[in-house]
Amino acid sequence: MSVIKPSLAKGTRDFTPVEMVKRNFIYDTIKTVFKKYGYAEIQTPSFENLSTLTGKYGDEGDKLIFKILNSGEFLKDPKKKDFDFAAEENSNKLIPMISEKALRYDLTVPFARYVVMHQNEITLPFKRFQVQPVWRADRPQKGRYREFYQCDVDVVGSASLLNEAEFILIYNEALSNLGLKDFSIKINNRKILSGIAEIIGKPELIIDMTVAIDKLDKIGLDGVSKELLERGFTEADLEKLRPVILLEGSNTEKLASLKTVLAQSETGLKGIAEIEQVFEYVESLIAYSLPLTAKLELDITLARGLNYYTGCIFEVKTNEVAMGSIGGGGRYDDLTGMFGLKDLTGVGVSFGADRIYDVLEELDLFPTATEIGTKVLISNFDAEAEKYALPVLQQLRNAGIAAELYPSAAKLKKQMAYADAKKIPYVVLVGGDEMASGELTLKDMQSGEQKKLSVLGILDLLKGA
Amino acid sequence: MSVIKPSLAKGTRDFTPVEMVKRNFIYDTIKTVFKKYGYAEIQTPSFENLSTLTGKYGDEGDKLIFKILNSGEFLKDPKKKDFDFAAEENSNKLIPMISEKALRYDLTVPFARYVVMHQNEITLPFKRFQVQPVWRADRPQKGRYREFYQCDVDVVGSASLLNEAEFILIYNEALSNLGLKDFSIKINNRKILSGIAEIIGKPELIIDMTVAIDKLDKIGLDGVSKELLERGFTEADLEKLRPVILLEGSNTEKLASLKTVLAQSETGLKGIAEIEQVFEYVESLIAYSLPLTAKLELDITLARGLNYYTGCIFEVKTNEVAMGSIGGGGRYDDLTGMFGLKDLTGVGVSFGADRIYDVLEELDLFPTATEIGTKVLISNFDAEAEKYALPVLQQLRNAGIAAELYPSAAKLKKQMAYADAKKIPYVVLVGGDEMASGELTLKDMQSGEQKKLSVLGILDLLKGA
Repeated sequence: MSVIKPSLAKGTRDFTPVEMVKRNFIYDTIKTVFKKYGYAEIQTPSFENLSTLTGKYGDEGDKLIFKILNSGEFLKDPKKKDFDFAAEENSNKLIPMISEKALRYDLTVPFARYVVMHQNEITLPFKRFQVQPVWRADRPQKGRYREFYQCDVDVVGSASLLNEAEFILIYNEALSNLGLKDFSIKINNRKILSGIAEIIGKPELIIDMTVAIDKLDKIGLDGVSKELLERGFTEADLEKLRPVILLEGSNTEKLASLKTVLAQSETGLKGIAEIEQVFEYVESLIAYSLPLTAKLELDITLARGLNYYTGCIFEVKTNEVAMGSIGGGGRYDDLTGMFGLKDLTGVGVSFGADRIYDVLEELDLFPTATEIGTKVLISNFDAEAEKYALPVLQQLRNAGIAAELYPSAAKLKKQMAYADAKKIPYVVLVGGDEMASGELTLKDMQSGEQKKLSVLGILDLLKGA
Repeated sequence: MSVIKPSLAKGTRDFTPVEMVKRNFIYDTIKTVFKKYGYAEIQTPSFENLSTLTGKYGDEGDKLIFKILNSGEFLKDPKKKDFDFAAEENSNKLIPMISEKALRYDLTVPFARYVVMHQNEITLPFKRFQVQPVWRADRPQKGRYREFYQCDVDVVGSASLLNEAEFILIYNEALSNLGLKDFSIKINNRKILSGIAEIIGKPELIIDMTVAIDKLDKIGLDGVSKELLERGFTEADLEKLRPVILLEGSNTEKLASLKTVLAQSETGLKGIAEIEQVFEYVESLIAYSLPLTAKLELDITLARGLNYYTGCIFEVKTNEVAMGSIGGGGRYDDLTGMFGLKDLTGVGVSFGADRIYDVLEELDLFPTATEIGTKVLISNFDAEAEKYALPVLQQLRNAGIAAELYPSAAKLKKQMAYADAKKIPYVVLVGGDEMASGELTLKDMQSGEQKKLSVLGILDLLKGA
């Protein structure tokens, strides 16, 4: 076996113990809220049949799906004789001959597959959450990885706008519990966007319109206007669009303006009514309860994957750190149609765990590692002290305290360095005096303070700590 | 987009909400014990460079590694011109041209890679656990999947046999906490096996010897004898081997017999001393603590991946259900040598989560789902009742109670069927009388009992439940 210097596959990461504590803090906080709102966890396999995934994410998406090579002697397949390997440079033609599986690209398509395959055992509405990695063959760059986690929560089979309102509360509660203090939940509705395109008289250009106005943040009104003209709108159209794009004021004021603008569009008014109903649900839910920490903002420039959503659209941003969206989602009226199950409405949102990680890191909001790892290290100076320490060690563990005995006799300095490196908050010193008196020395590693205590005294102190 | 009937990739599984609750019960129970013994969690990426994995699992293992197709236009690579695709039928020659990544086959090799890459930031001894899926292109069959979970716990950089003793306690505590009442932890030592081969005068046949005697359970003494003769041992050798293979009695008695048999083998005696030291550590650890539920048995027919282990070897079996081993492991003196970091000793064990799942299912040891999912469903009969229910719903959630409002007005029967399907233990009925009096009807779905309670009364009752 030749020795190779090991490296990580491009775009992937190891997670160290400290990073895992932080990541679990995010997952656990979010999952706890999902459960409180009646959502149940499912998991789907890491790889799916290629046919389940291809054609769902557009041509660009298809290229970013990681395909798995068939195992066994796939070159013996007679089909490959028809393929001119030497001349052919288009890998797409070869792929179906040598691959029939691929890694999950997102959690939504596997969920749709799940709903269709389990339709006879599911009771609707089906409320599920899913926290799993996904893989994309993107070019890796800062903050973009080839393996990353999605935290999705969706309900299928319920048209009620109560679901939309609850997602606002789920975002509010989960992000507050993670320590965020200033964040915005932006909401829009596909029907409002359709209404606007209708009023201008260009319903067929709705996608061009939304793609352009979605960029208002980045390229400003002039940029958006330029792009709209390039995409087939006229100066006269822009006259009508501009006041809508620049809509200001409170949500109530924006809704009132929109009602005037969209008075002639049935679809547009329906979108407004949906937003109003969602806001009303949120008001009622929080009536005798916690206030909304989040800023809830109607933003009609918000589009996200428009072809997909049919009703409300959400996006979440923190106002404390410069960072793209940390969550988003919306309603899609025909999620499972791609697998032959028609007319099943769904609505869901997602938390971007990796971006939330970066935000919490920057704002220093993670609990300190000392709260989670080993709580106490018992020293080990010689065979006699080790023998003395063994039952003490096990008594600590039986009291639910994470404890270690340094596994062999070593110098005090080395053992202290170990405790420091693992951020262990307490060390119990067992020396000759301690064994003679039965009072062990407990050292608080943060303050440096030492006190002599019986084993029971140590148990009491650490159980309370 | 053509509609296809969806299916799972061969050998993979979806996990439903009920299954996830059960799986999380296993993972959480095991992880809690790992942490109590001072182990910290890490995760490694799902795929590694192909060169990190190949050559580590033998030729058969290499074939079972799932390779990932390079993305982009890999057929443009000039190297492929040298390959005669039309004539060549050996896929192995093509693989390096079209694949440079592969899915994790186990957790041990990625852990070794992790240790080598992080050696400058790790403080030894490094105690880590890892609970992640692994993938193998095995032919799927009952109980064997292409994606399954491993729960590994290892320490590197400590030669102390305290670690071995603690793994026995970890198995004991985790499996007891999962509800198992009768299980065996078998222990052996590679040095004892070497000693036996030495005494017979065939040290070079140690692998043949252990492969054969490892089968004693399955093929009996006659079968083992036959295989030993085929593998190069003589009748005279068998004479010497037989009493060792058939060793009976308590652990103390077996150790005494072995000391006589192996008196001339320094290595063999070292193995015996190691086992004795481990037993001594276990005795001391449990002196003032919980008794050992597990049967701890010296079993010199136990071999497992012998080429790998250098000291103690473990295997765990339940005696309540017919099932292969549900865990195992041992000490390996040169884990990281394959990546150029020499002389780093390690010892670790693994829990087979999927087999443990089957055992708990068969023995009906899983907690009921009602203890974990949504606790209360509020009925929804019309807009007025819904409006009334919204703040009640949120008060329940703010008290930490998982609660749902049926998301739209529906017939009672439908709502009750929903509660039944989700195994929700309580339903709150909100009708005209309830809204008039402020006393809501709380129905216990198990007993059918109904009582009228204020919102505060319901909160009190459910917080205690």
